Amino acid sequence: MVATNTTNYGLIRTVQVRNENIPGVLGALASAIGSAGANIGNIQTVHLSQSYVLRDIDVHVEDETHLLEVLRAVGQVKGVRVTETRDEVMDLHQGGKIAIVSRQPVADIAMLRKVYTPGVAEICRAIHAQPSLARRFTSIGSTVAIVTDGTAVLGLGRIGLAPAMPVMEGKAALLQQFAGVNGAPLLIEASNADEFVEAVVRVAPTYSGIHVEDVAAPACFDIVAQLRERLSIPVMQDDQDGTAAVVLGALMSAMRTTDRRLSDVTIGQVGLGAAGQSVVSLLMHATGRPVLGADVNEDAIGRHEQQGGRVASLDEIMATADVVISTTGVPGLIGPERVRSGQIVFALSNPDPEIRPAQAIEAGAALAADGTTVNNLLGYPGIWRGALSTQASEINRSMLVAAGEALMEATPHGDLSPTALDPEVHRRVAYAVGKAAVESGVGDADGLVDLE
Amino acid sequence: MVATNTTNYGLIRTVQVRNENIPGVLGALASAIGSAGANIGNIQTVHLSQSYVLRDIDVHVEDETHLLEVLRAVGQVKGVRVTETRDEVMDLHQGGKIAIVSRQPVADIAMLRKVYTPGVAEICRAIHAQPSLARRFTSIGSTVAIVTDGTAVLGLGRIGLAPAMPVMEGKAALLQQFAGVNGAPLLIEASNADEFVEAVVRVAPTYSGIHVEDVAAPACFDIVAQLRERLSIPVMQDDQDGTAAVVLGALMSAMRTTDRRLSDVTIGQVGLGAAGQSVVSLLMHATGRPVLGADVNEDAIGRHEQQGGRVASLDEIMATADVVISTTGVPGLIGPERVRSGQIVFALSNPDPEIRPAQAIEAGAALAADGTTVNNLLGYPGIWRGALSTQASEINRSMLVAAGEALMEATPHGDLSPTALDPEVHRRVAYAVGKAAVESGVGDADGLVDLE
Repeated sequence: MVATNTTNYGLIRTVQVRNENIPGVLGALASAIGSAGANIGNIQTVHLSQSYVLRDIDVHVEDETHLLEVLRAVGQVKGVRVTETRDEVMDLHQGGKIAIVSRQPVADIAMLRKVYTPGVAEICRAIHAQPSLARRFTSIGSTVAIVTDGTAVLGLGRIGLAPAMPVMEGKAALLQQFAGVNGAPLLIEASNADEFVEAVVRVAPTYSGIHVEDVAAPACFDIVAQLRERLSIPVMQDDQDGTAAVVLGALMSAMRTTDRRLSDVTIGQVGLGAAGQSVVSLLMHATGRPVLGADVNEDAIGRHEQQGGRVASLDEIMATADVVISTTGVPGLIGPERVRSGQIVFALSNPDPEIRPAQAIEAGAALAADGTTVNNLLGYPGIWRGALSTQASEINRSMLVAAGEALMEATPHGDLSPTALDPEVHRRVAYAVGKAAVESGVGDADGLVDLE
Repeated sequence: MVATNTTNYGLIRTVQVRNENIPGVLGALASAIGSAGANIGNIQTVHLSQSYVLRDIDVHVEDETHLLEVLRAVGQVKGVRVTETRDEVMDLHQGGKIAIVSRQPVADIAMLRKVYTPGVAEICRAIHAQPSLARRFTSIGSTVAIVTDGTAVLGLGRIGLAPAMPVMEGKAALLQQFAGVNGAPLLIEASNADEFVEAVVRVAPTYSGIHVEDVAAPACFDIVAQLRERLSIPVMQDDQDGTAAVVLGALMSAMRTTDRRLSDVTIGQVGLGAAGQSVVSLLMHATGRPVLGADVNEDAIGRHEQQGGRVASLDEIMATADVVISTTGVPGLIGPERVRSGQIVFALSNPDPEIRPAQAIEAGAALAADGTTVNNLLGYPGIWRGALSTQASEINRSMLVAAGEALMEATPHGDLSPTALDPEVHRRVAYAVGKAAVESGVGDADGLVDLE
């Protein structure tokens, strides 16, 4: 199998190989894996002796059949033997990815009496007398609900509630790791937007924010609008707001690299679903100019026009836009022959982009990225931290623009995005978002101290 | 101030004192604190030199006025100086007591690709193909929602949602610590039972159990009944089911100590609210005999008769019952003059019992306990662990009786309850409950392996 533009590396497996400890074997091994069309992830030496080496090699393959082809190719390398194949992804998910834990171990009676009865009654009474203390003395102030109805999970679509849970847990795990925010997954059984909204509103007193995740368009528009209307805490639809902020950041970095201004370029958005529509909205807000938009769905086109966008075909966008952003979910939609020299191409559908960055560059693009670089993980942790620390009542456009600017500032010159694993990136986003919350009148300045 | 039967030690403060390093000072100090009517908790030596000692002393006092009296008394002890007074209860609650964390640190790109995109998609697809895998590969299998409407919080009553949160967090913290169960607090804004039930049912796919906490009677009866009707996961009302199991365990221990049989003694229940009614129900199930019940509320009396209990006055119960259990919320209700020689008295209202155990013993009781000994913390962690590990569809009476028996077996001879801080106690309860789930046909035997 040869990797193509549309190869979906859906499986990750860890292959343990044993070979003689002589130079050149790893090179032959890696070449064999690459020739079989697989990508290589981490390589870890498990055992090393004079006679042999044992290594764990992560391989990204399309499916089980592809894995067998890779194993066969590895087995044919001279002096190499596959000793084991493990599914570390499955192993890592055993028991789930998150836990709800005590922040203080309760090791003795004295501690028990302080955090449980009778001590806890004092805190209950204090909050009863002054409700604003709840944010300080409970987890409410640092917790957001991650809510979904399982209708648009990753690129997998309407797979249902329990199958969506691993995604919600991933978001929660990363929220805590990068921003100290508790993400509480909530799988909501609802057959329409009203039922969904009603359930979220009833449990909302437990949280200081609602993070809407993987809810399909157009229901998500109604859900988010209703939640914002009825709740006084921020409601963020990550596939919309988070994506828009991260795209803006990457676009600002691209402008810096190509020495252009956002207000001078023509931007085309291919795909006007939940993500696309929000990207258009934020970019028009940031640039003050209309964005070209293409979609096969009439309703999506209607919404695009309604918010002031200009309608264009995919061909027109490819032929005229300086910047092309695609969020269609259609792998390989953009053939290399359509890319114009000097164009900036963000093909963001996950896991398989409309055109692979290397192909776009080869076809003449000045800059190109896919969803692994321009990823929501760059945005939502810091955005939530900034909003929660300033007790913001909403996440508005100023805050999203601030997040984008902070990402651009954290990006090494010449790159489009910083690495999402760098805690400093999230700290910068959090501070910028908190500052924007205060300056736009929806946040409390006292909270900025914690973000500095 | 002199401590009385009804003293409410609502405040815990940490007083730091400095005194000369000579023998006898701590004794004088402790006596002074006791004479001022305060209880002493932990004493920790902070600094020790040849010339002086610095100690942190936890004192349990009634209120701020009482604290000042205690501090004055301490200051009058020769050679002693109060250097600081701290509110460690408040300190411990800063930021809340629980956190939602990643079970695996996401330290590098390889890990990120395994727990987030693209790796997570594999798990989503696996669960989509085989829904039962959700319990294994997500936190759903080890998580219960701790739900409340804030209408009957501790002894504080209808204080509302946010003020109830510290109690929910306390339950969650202890669930994880003693049973490895994730407790997810849910504060539910509802004006009636139907709204409450509707919200819980909608979010229920996120959990493998519903722990109902601090919901007032009679609404809680309707809520629990409706939830059990509509959900296929266990619903436990801790103030009812948990209390009943723990009381049964203490009563079995009392029978062992006094060499009597449960089926031979006359039991009287004073107070037929949510807890009292469930205690009666479980004890009648376990003994096969009616329990005497007293309450000032006509509806409660009606429910008691309906489930086969016999109605009696408080006077009649005190005059005839071998075992008196009270859950009235009325401090000091049972005067010592009413206690008969050889009686067993469990006065369980928290934080202030109907009669203090020492008083009951002095008045002739054979055994006596209050809510600090016979505490729900002995029950719910192990009950949930047993139910979750066997994927039980309900928590039935057999499982509650099994929990009570396990508690009795874990209790040192002569005592009424084991210490809740001993992990072995919770392990025993979990195994007994899991076994009962399997034997009563509501649980999966495969799960017992994890509990052994």
